[in-house]
Parts: sequence; structure tokens; C-alpha cells
Amino acid sequence: MSVLKGNAIFGQSGGPSAVINSSAAGVFTEALKSDAIKNVYGALHGIVGILNEDFIDIGQESKKQIKLLRGTPASILGSCRYKLADYDEDPTDYETILRVFKKYDIRYFFYNGGNDSMDTCDKISKFLDDQGYECRVIGVPKTIDNDLAVTDHTPGYGSAAKFVATTTMEMFLDSRVYNRGMIIVLEVMGRHAGWLTAATALAAKKGYGPELIYLPEIPFDFDEMLEDVERIYTKSQNVMIAVSEGVKTADGKIIPESVGKVEIDAFGHKQMGGTANVLAQRLGQELGSKVRGIELSLLQRSGSHIASGVDIDEAFLAGQEAVKAALAGATDVMIGFERPLKGPYECLIRQIPLRDVANHEKMLPREWINEAGNHVLDPFIDYALPLIQGDPQQEKEDGLPLFASFKKIQAGDRDK
Amino acid sequence: MSVLKGNAIFGQSGGPSAVINSSAAGVFTEALKSDAIKNVYGALHGIVGILNEDFIDIGQESKKQIKLLRGTPASILGSCRYKLADYDEDPTDYETILRVFKKYDIRYFFYNGGNDSMDTCDKISKFLDDQGYECRVIGVPKTIDNDLAVTDHTPGYGSAAKFVATTTMEMFLDSRVYNRGMIIVLEVMGRHAGWLTAATALAAKKGYGPELIYLPEIPFDFDEMLEDVERIYTKSQNVMIAVSEGVKTADGKIIPESVGKVEIDAFGHKQMGGTANVLAQRLGQELGSKVRGIELSLLQRSGSHIASGVDIDEAFLAGQEAVKAALAGATDVMIGFERPLKGPYECLIRQIPLRDVANHEKMLPREWINEAGNHVLDPFIDYALPLIQGDPQQEKEDGLPLFASFKKIQAGDRDK
Repeated sequence: MSVLKGNAIFGQSGGPSAVINSSAAGVFTEALKSDAIKNVYGALHGIVGILNEDFIDIGQESKKQIKLLRGTPASILGSCRYKLADYDEDPTDYETILRVFKKYDIRYFFYNGGNDSMDTCDKISKFLDDQGYECRVIGVPKTIDNDLAVTDHTPGYGSAAKFVATTTMEMFLDSRVYNRGMIIVLEVMGRHAGWLTAATALAAKKGYGPELIYLPEIPFDFDEMLEDVERIYTKSQNVMIAVSEGVKTADGKIIPESVGKVEIDAFGHKQMGGTANVLAQRLGQELGSKVRGIELSLLQRSGSHIASGVDIDEAFLAGQEAVKAALAGATDVMIGFERPLKGPYECLIRQIPLRDVANHEKMLPREWINEAGNHVLDPFIDYALPLIQGDPQQEKEDGLPLFASFKKIQAGDRDK
Repeated sequence: MSVLKGNAIFGQSGGPSAVINSSAAGVFTEALKSDAIKNVYGALHGIVGILNEDFIDIGQESKKQIKLLRGTPASILGSCRYKLADYDEDPTDYETILRVFKKYDIRYFFYNGGNDSMDTCDKISKFLDDQGYECRVIGVPKTIDNDLAVTDHTPGYGSAAKFVATTTMEMFLDSRVYNRGMIIVLEVMGRHAGWLTAATALAAKKGYGPELIYLPEIPFDFDEMLEDVERIYTKSQNVMIAVSEGVKTADGKIIPESVGKVEIDAFGHKQMGGTANVLAQRLGQELGSKVRGIELSLLQRSGSHIASGVDIDEAFLAGQEAVKAALAGATDVMIGFERPLKGPYECLIRQIPLRDVANHEKMLPREWINEAGNHVLDPFIDYALPLIQGDPQQEKEDGLPLFASFKKIQAGDRDK
């Protein structure tokens, strides 16, 4: 196969994570050393940056700053929640992308995100192919939710799981110091799948975690929960409950919907948050006990200071492998992970067709959840534990994190 | 002076912190090696444990577990919020304490807590003295609020401040990834004083922190805040606001009181929490923008995984020095810290009469707050920075914290 020469562009999309920038570092490092790729561009705010020709020249950034990305949370290039219309409905954006790609001779397109982003990737890939414009399109996986299909797990999950498990252990101890009853309702992110909420079971396994775990995989019933809580509270006066923000009652409603209206975003997703407080208030009313609702909010997805070393390395690897795959001729795939069926944990790379990932969601297997649907079983512990190992790689200055800071020189500016 | 021989008891009181157990380790380590002290007891749930003769024999715990206390948050012995009545009102508790102390030959009483606990200490000390019962009573300081009088700072503060500053930096980045406006209202603990909320200024100093900081030291005015927020939002579409849970309007009401009833605890203190959500909702209504309220809740006071090494060491030192002071004849004092007026940071020990600490509160100096009353100035940064240095000392197992676990053998049981 002949070498495809041209420029590369990379974009970040969807909710950020503690390690999405580590994937960026992987893409940048690998792409910058390739002979086939002349310029490496970073699209600001994902696809929106491409549509607006708002992108920067990564070649102008220092090696030191690119290295610091490994300990810098959120998205160095900015993210977006922009939904590309179907081509048949409205071809405008597609035509713009083609025009921009031609203008900048973009032959490599790397896009880092979750299943919505893989859908965007897939649509662009198909369109460019239909137009006969040669461009290698590779998805780089990212989501703290860990709900991407086919891949064993997703960069971002291990670090968020480590934050959740560690702080759950700490809060568990904290919440039980008084000689009086206390119920904690801990709300963890996860729109449709319970992977991150299940990470509280890692804390429980150590003896410092929730007695009850409610996941979106199981329809939520307040009365059943009340019964569960009452039973434990009567015995020990202390209950810790972990609940996913995404739990839904049998009629498909998330908990905050029971007390008011909930906003809808560009992808038609409901805005999350508030579940813990709603449940805490109801439990307090029903049981007359002290109840505290705690939402892990942005902390759980930006906690670079307690990131998993394994996750940081794998995120970087995913970025590197995306570039290697593209240079070797792959396109229309996402880099995914696989682990050996037997033996010690290992992270094996595989390429997954974008269409197999786009808009699918991987749920926690039912057999990893207990029969009552209110806790998580050991197979999950075995699955998750290898993903949270290793120290964070955040450089410090004055005892505080040292974040990467980019010059962000607009592409083309240096020729002016 | 003759050596006072007998047994020692130690108790923990008030809200826990990431390093209160490090002080316990300091007391235990020092007391266990003293010849004058025969048995070292730990009162379960502070003064309540003494009243109920519910205490354990620390001599039965292993050195390894005592060492693990340095990385174990919350209170290994349990805490309480029990208010001792004035002797003139009701002498019952005092008489019980005297009886228990005589029964167990307690000649050393170490009590770890904030200003309420120092008041308890002071009352007991005076009573025992009046009764002619020789007992050395020493307070060991503790509070994430940092509002204890006379002492330069208090163990627990540095670690909480480090958690707050670090996660604020991370959330700051996370909250600005999208190409749309976002207002964050971050609620930090601090019932009466703004020390911990001010720690968000450490993040701001690094370029990743709140544009606006509201402290309990300055009367809170919603309209002024709205003006502040609107001004910044119009310019940059992004605002991060740090607000203390203890901010009060001119009529002395905390923010959650404006929307409903607030519980009162045993000390007559209002139950905190909910400020961020109330303010976020009001800002959203007024500005029509996306606003997210975030409460750092129990995470900020139990975050051992990101504790300050300096704080852990100083907490341990305070415990050690309490024992040394008592053995040297001191009583009715709290161990406090002082720093040199000039030159590099150093932690000097001084003894402070309990009555000078009991029920007083140390506020952030007005001159460390900007004129508008909505941010914090450099003298605070210089004050706080030395307190957050050094790595946490949390041992790990499977990538998760390894906490101390006590056998908790009841005092006297081994003789049975």
C-alpha cells in the first residue's frame, strides 16, 4: 500500500475525563514523528472547530506541555455536544467538512469521544468515502461511563472508578463516626449504564462501602429501596446507598423527573443530577432519620490527582495506536481493548468497525448484579480491579497540580 | 516536680478530618512509651464513651495499625456532638466523670477537637481541680474550619485546603471545555469562618480557580453577587463562584433558610449544606444561563488520599506534644502552633490556656479579603501555601487505601 501523505486533525468530544488528554498526547506524540503526516492540527471544540476552521498547530506546542497532558484533566482543545444531522436531512455540515479537509489537505482524522462521537466519526467517514476523498478516519474511545460496545473497557473509566472507590471508602468512615444513625445517598454518574456506580462495590469489598447499590440496568422502585434501607437501618443505624444518576422507574423516568422538569440536550439526552437529593429527602420523610445526599458531580470525572496509572497509559496507547493504525491503512474503525480470557490482566489492542460502536450502549451484565438487584457481585470486582491500578502521573508545583498549557497558535498563522 | 503516675485516656470529638487519627497516633505512640502512664485508653465517641465507661485498651493494638492511622480519615474511636451542661445547671455528668476517672485511675486526659471540645475540656479541667482530683487535662486541636483562636492554624485544615484547592483546579478545567456558557457555584464547608473556602484562592492563583469567593466574614447580598456574576459572565461566558456554607445575609440567616427550615444540632448550631443549590437555582432563574451547584460535602474533610504531608506530621506532633506537656506537668492547656514572624515556614509549639480557645472563633482577617468582599488577597496565599505541602501518607492495597483497623478490646477485659 502506498503511503498516504497529508495533514492530520484531532478533536475531542463529549464529556471530559481525567485521561482524555492522555489520549491526545498519544495521538500528538505519534503523529508528530510520522513522515507521512506533515502538520498535526487540533480542532477546538471538536467537530465545531472543524466546521469553523478553528484549529491550532500542534507542532508549535512544546514536548513538555504535551507530556503534561498526561496529568491534565478535561479537554485541552475544548469539547462540544454538536449533533451532525443525517446527510439526507441536511448536507451542509458535510460539505463544509469536505471543503475544509480539502483546503487543509486533511488526510487523517482522529476523533476522541463516546458513542455519540463514534457516530459522528462514522457518518463523516462514510461521506468522505462516497465523495472519493481519501481520508483515514479513526475513533479514539473515551468515556467515564464505560458503556462503549465491543471494547473490554474505555479510557477514562479506570480513573473515574478509582476516584469513586477511594472517596467512597473515605466517606464511609467519615459518615460512621457519630453515635447516632446516618443514611448516605451517594449519586454517581452514568446515564444508561451502571459501570461507574458499580465501582462503589470495590469500596464495599474492602469493608468500607455501600450496603446497597442501585444501577440503571435494574428498574428502580422506591418502595423496594425503602424496604432495603429500613431493614439495614433497623439493624445497624447506618446505611450507605450508592445510586446511579441514570436509574429509572418502570415508566422510564429518571428520579429528578418525579419532582420537576428536566432539561434535554442537543443529543436528546436528559440533563442528569439531583437524584441523591431527591431520594435523601424522601428517605428522610419516610424514616425520620438523618439522611445526607452526596453528588460526586464534576469531581469524579476530573480527578487527575487520583487517576489510575493503568488508565493513563492505556489512554495514551489508544491515541498512539489510532495513529499507527491510520498510517497502516486502517479507516472507519475505533481503537478498542481486549483482555486475555485467562491469566493475568493485559491490555490488547483491536480495531472495531465504527458502526459496531456508534449509538450502541454496553450494560453491566445481569449476572454481575445480585438477584435482588441492589448490589454487585465478585465478577465485577475481578473485572474492575486491574483498571484502577498504578499511581497518577500529575506533576506538582507548590503542592498543587501542574497542568499543561497550550499556546494555541491558529493553523496557518505561522505562514502569514 | 514529682512524676504523676496513673492511666491516660484519649477521646475524639466534633467533625472528623483527614488527620485527626494522625493526632491519635501521636498521643498513643508517646503515651505508650511513657513510664508514668500505665494504661492508655481510648474513649469511644469522645466524652460519651467516658460517661458510659465505653473505652478500649490502646496497648492491645498493634504498632502497625497505629501507624496506619496516619492515612486513615475520620475518627478511629468515633466522635460525638455531646454538650456538657454547666456544672451549676446539672452536675450529673461531672460527677460521673470523676467517678469513672477515680475507678480507672485516670490521671491524664487528652481531648481532640475544635472549640466546642476545648470548652468541654476546660469545664472538666476546672471541675477536677475544684474537687482536688489531680489530673492533667490537655486539648489537642482539630478542625478543618481552622477557626480555633490563638493558634496559627489547626491540624486538619491543611489537608482539607489541599483537597479543596486541587479539586477546584480540576473542576475549573472540566467546567470550561464546552463552547457555551457555564456558571459553577462551589459550596465549601466553614460554619462561621471562611478559611476553607478561601483555599479556592490557591487554585485561582494558579489560574484555575473561582473569579468570585464569598466568605462568612462578609455579609452576603444576593443582588451584589448577581451583579458580580453578570459582569463576568457577559465578558467570558464562564464564572466559577466559591461560597462558604456559612455565608449569612445581613439579617444573620444562612442561605438555605431562605427556602425552608434548617435543623439545629445539640450545640445549637444550624445544620449546613444546600447553599450551592439554592444559589445555583436563583442564578439560573435570573440569568437564564446554565448553572451547576456543587457541594464538596464529606469529601473535603475525609480526603486522606490527597492529604497534606505537613498537616499529617503536624497533627501527629500535636498529639505527641500533648503527652509530653502533660508529663512535664502542664494542664488546662491546648497545644497550639506558631510560625516565625520572618523567614521560612516552621511550626513552633506553644501551650494555650483552654479558656483562651474555648468558644472563641478566629475569622479570616478583613485585610486578607479584597475591598469588594468577593475575593481573597495574597497574604492569605502566603499563609496557606506552606500548610498544603508534602505528599499524603496513605498506604495502598489493590490500588485502594489501606485503613487502620482496631481490635477495640474493652478496657479491663484482659484482666477478666
